[in-house]
Amino acid sequence: MSTHPVASSPAASVTAAILAVGDEVLRGEVTNSNAAYLGDRLFSLGFDVVAHLVVSDQPDEIKAALQRLGLHVDLVLVTGGLGPTDDDRTVGVVCELLGVKAVQHESSLVAMKAWFAARDYALTPNNLKQTEIPEGSDPLPNPAGLAPGFGVQIGRARCFFMPGVPREMRRIFESHVATRAGALIAQRGAPAALTRTFHIFGMGESHIDHRLQGIEDGCPEGTVAVHYRTANPENHVRIVVRDADRSRGQATFDRLDGFIHERLGSVIYGVDDDTFISALRRTFLVTQKRLAVAESCTGGLAGQMVTHEPGASGFFAGGVVAYENEVKERVLGVEAEVLRIHGAVSEPCAAQMALGVRRLLNVDVAVSITGIAGDSLHDLSYPQAAAPASTEKSVGTVCFGVADGNGTRTETRQFSGGRERVRNAAAYHALELARRAVLLPMENPSSQQSPVELSSKRK
Amino acid sequence: MSTHPVASSPAASVTAAILAVGDEVLRGEVTNSNAAYLGDRLFSLGFDVVAHLVVSDQPDEIKAALQRLGLHVDLVLVTGGLGPTDDDRTVGVVCELLGVKAVQHESSLVAMKAWFAARDYALTPNNLKQTEIPEGSDPLPNPAGLAPGFGVQIGRARCFFMPGVPREMRRIFESHVATRAGALIAQRGAPAALTRTFHIFGMGESHIDHRLQGIEDGCPEGTVAVHYRTANPENHVRIVVRDADRSRGQATFDRLDGFIHERLGSVIYGVDDDTFISALRRTFLVTQKRLAVAESCTGGLAGQMVTHEPGASGFFAGGVVAYENEVKERVLGVEAEVLRIHGAVSEPCAAQMALGVRRLLNVDVAVSITGIAGDSLHDLSYPQAAAPASTEKSVGTVCFGVADGNGTRTETRQFSGGRERVRNAAAYHALELARRAVLLPMENPSSQQSPVELSSKRK
Repeated sequence: MSTHPVASSPAASVTAAILAVGDEVLRGEVTNSNAAYLGDRLFSLGFDVVAHLVVSDQPDEIKAALQRLGLHVDLVLVTGGLGPTDDDRTVGVVCELLGVKAVQHESSLVAMKAWFAARDYALTPNNLKQTEIPEGSDPLPNPAGLAPGFGVQIGRARCFFMPGVPREMRRIFESHVATRAGALIAQRGAPAALTRTFHIFGMGESHIDHRLQGIEDGCPEGTVAVHYRTANPENHVRIVVRDADRSRGQATFDRLDGFIHERLGSVIYGVDDDTFISALRRTFLVTQKRLAVAESCTGGLAGQMVTHEPGASGFFAGGVVAYENEVKERVLGVEAEVLRIHGAVSEPCAAQMALGVRRLLNVDVAVSITGIAGDSLHDLSYPQAAAPASTEKSVGTVCFGVADGNGTRTETRQFSGGRERVRNAAAYHALELARRAVLLPMENPSSQQSPVELSSKRK
Repeated sequence: MSTHPVASSPAASVTAAILAVGDEVLRGEVTNSNAAYLGDRLFSLGFDVVAHLVVSDQPDEIKAALQRLGLHVDLVLVTGGLGPTDDDRTVGVVCELLGVKAVQHESSLVAMKAWFAARDYALTPNNLKQTEIPEGSDPLPNPAGLAPGFGVQIGRARCFFMPGVPREMRRIFESHVATRAGALIAQRGAPAALTRTFHIFGMGESHIDHRLQGIEDGCPEGTVAVHYRTANPENHVRIVVRDADRSRGQATFDRLDGFIHERLGSVIYGVDDDTFISALRRTFLVTQKRLAVAESCTGGLAGQMVTHEPGASGFFAGGVVAYENEVKERVLGVEAEVLRIHGAVSEPCAAQMALGVRRLLNVDVAVSITGIAGDSLHDLSYPQAAAPASTEKSVGTVCFGVADGNGTRTETRQFSGGRERVRNAAAYHALELARRAVLLPMENPSSQQSPVELSSKRK
C-alpha cells in the first residue's frame, strides 16, 4: 500500500484496539467508519493501534472479545450495542464480566425524560434500558443522543464504551474519552506524538516521494515516521514525531515542517483540518472576489463541492450546468460554429462557457469544465488494457476555461480512471484554477494586499 | 441499531471471517470498505459472518490471526499485504504456516512483464515478489492489477487471499472467489440464501416497520429474516430466506416479495442493484422527457447526482445553480417583488425558479430547490436542543417547485439534521418530484404507454 514508514516505530508502546459490536456491520450493511475515525485519533494521541475487531450482537461473542483484548492491550474502544433494542446487549455483558449490576445514569435519565416529554412520547422499558450503565463505571454523558457511554477496567485494558451512531460516538469521544486516553499515554510515560498532515493537490505521489527524498536525514533514530496517503485527487503527507526528549522532538518536528514546505511549496493547500474548499473560500473571502462555474461533464459537482461546507454565500454566486450542447449555446452563448468545428470538448468551447457564465452571473472569476467522463462508473480495466490517449478526445479528456478581469485562459487535461474519478479530478482542477486566478495576483509584490491578509493564506 | 431479525438465524451455519492486513487501516488512514463489501456478499451467499478483523503488517500478527481463525471458522477472506513493498508480507507468512516455498505464478508474471515492457519500465526484484504465491495453492488471477490472489487451507478454514485495493479485490472476488465460496456452502449442505433488497424513498423507518407488521406470519420457523437499514434519505428492507426445502423456500420468498410490494407500493423505487438515479433515468427515458433543475441551497448537488452515473445525456439538459438572489433574478427571472415580500425560501420563489429554468433550458419537466441548509455540516446538537420548527424559515426548511406541461406546483418540507443531511434530502426530494411528474400520467389507464413500457417501470 501507499505507506512507507521511514523509520521503525518508536520504542515505548501503549497498545490499543477498537471493537465494534453489531450484526449489521458484520453483514456489510454498515461500513465501519468509526474504526477509521478512532484509529486516526488514537494514533495521533500516541497509541499503537494493534487491532480492529467486529463481532456480532451475541453476548458470548462480545464477552470473549473483551476478555481476550483485556489480556493483550492497554486501551479498548468499543462502539455499538448501547441502543434500546433487544440486540443491544453490551451493558449486560460488561456487568456479567465485572460481577456488578446495571444502574440508571441519573443525569442521562433526566435528559431523556425531558426529551420524551417535549415530544409527548411515552417512555418504554426499552428506553429506560438505554440510560443504564454498569455500577461503579465512569459515566460518559452523551452530548448528541440518549445513551451515555461508560469506562471500565477489564484485565489490563482501560475500556471505553460508546454508541455506534458515528455522530454520537464522535461527540462522546471528543468530549470525554480523548482526554482520558491522553492521560493514559502520559501515565505510561510514552511520548505523545507530534503530528501534522499536509494536504496536497496538483502533484502525484511519486513526485512527492521524490521531492521528499532525504527528509529523515539527521533525525534521531526511531523518533520519526512519514506516511503518504492518496485521497484521490488529493495527496496527504503525514509526519509523526515521538521523542521521549520533548524539546528535541519539537525541534525535529519544526525542521520536518520547514523541509516539507520548502520542497512542496505551493501544492500544499492546507494542513490538518483544512479542506480543499476551505482554502478556496479563504482566498476568495480575503480578496472579496465572487466566483461562478459553468459545468458540463461534472453536472453540478463543482458547485456542490463549493457549497458542501457552510460559508459559500460569501463568495459563490452560482453557476450553469450545461450538460446538453443546446444549453451551452442558449444559456452560455457558445457559438454554434465553435461546437460544429471544435466540438463541445474543446478549449474554444471552454473559453466561451467561462466568458458566458461570468457575464451572465456578473462575477469576478468564472471557470468552466467540459470533457468526457466516460461510461464506466469505476475504472474496471486491467492496466494493460487501458488504451494510451492517442485520440484527442478519449475518455478522461477535459477542457477548462478561466475568465476574469485579466481575460480568458484555457487548458486541456487528460485524467485517468473511471467516470467518478475523472469528474472528481476535473471539479478539483477547475476550482484550483479559480483559486490560483485570485491567489497569484496576491503573491505579486505590487499587489495592494496588507501583510495580515497575505499571512492568512498560509495559516 | 436499526436491524430487527424477525426470526432467529437459520440452523445450518457455515461460518466466515474477514481479515484485513495493513497498518494504514489500523491507523485510520484508510476506511476498511472491503469488509463491508465482502460481508454483504458472504451473507448473501449463505454464510454466517462471525468476525471482521484488522491486524498490522507484522508477520507474527498475521500468523496469529490466521491460526486462530483457522480453528474457528469455515471460510476466511484476507485482503491486503500482497503488494511489492517491504511491508507486504502475507505470502511469506502463509508459506511459513504451511511449510511450503513461494513460487512464481507464471501467467501473472507474463502479464506483468508485458505491462512493464509496454511502458518501458524496468522490473525490480520487488515487482517479481508481487507475482509469487505459495506452492500448491489455488491461484486467483487478478483481472484488474498485477498481484494474483490465492486460496489455501489453514486448519478447518478455506482461506482466500486478495490484494487490498478495492477495485482489484472486487474483481478477484467476483471472478474466482464467489463461486468457490458458493460451492463450500453447497458442499456443507447449507441452504443458499434467497435475498432481495427493496429500496425505498419517501417513507420513514417507523412507518415502514408498521406497514410490514405480520410479515413473518405463517413462514416456516427459522427460515426468514427481515432487516431494515437507513441509508439516509433512503430506507432499505432486505428479506433473507434460507430453507433446506428449496421449493418451500422459493414459495416463502415469493410470498414475502408480494407482501412487501402490496404494503409499500409506490415508495419502492427499485430493488437490489437499482439506484435512485437509475429509476429516475428509466422513467425519463421511457417517456422521452427532458429534465432541468434550478438549485439554490443544494448548489449543484441534484445535477451532480443525476450525472454521477452514465446515461444522463439521454434526458438531462442541465440546470442553473442560483445560489445568490441576484442570480435567481438575473438568470431565472424571479421577480424582485417576490424576493422582497416572500423571500428566497418561499413557494412563490420556488415556482418562478422552476418556470424560469424550464423556459431557459427548454425542457419538459423542471424542478427547483430553495431552502435553508444551515451552518453546521453535521447535526451536532443534542436532540433536546433542536428547536421545534416554529418559525417558518428555520434550518431545514426547503421549498420546491415543479414546472411541466400541466403547470406549476410547489411544496415546502422541513428536514432535520445538519447541512449535509438537509441538502441530500432536498436533492432527493426534488428528483422524486420530477420522477413522479412523469410517472403519474403513465399510471393513468388512459395514457398511451404500451404494456411493455409500463412493465419496465416495475422491473
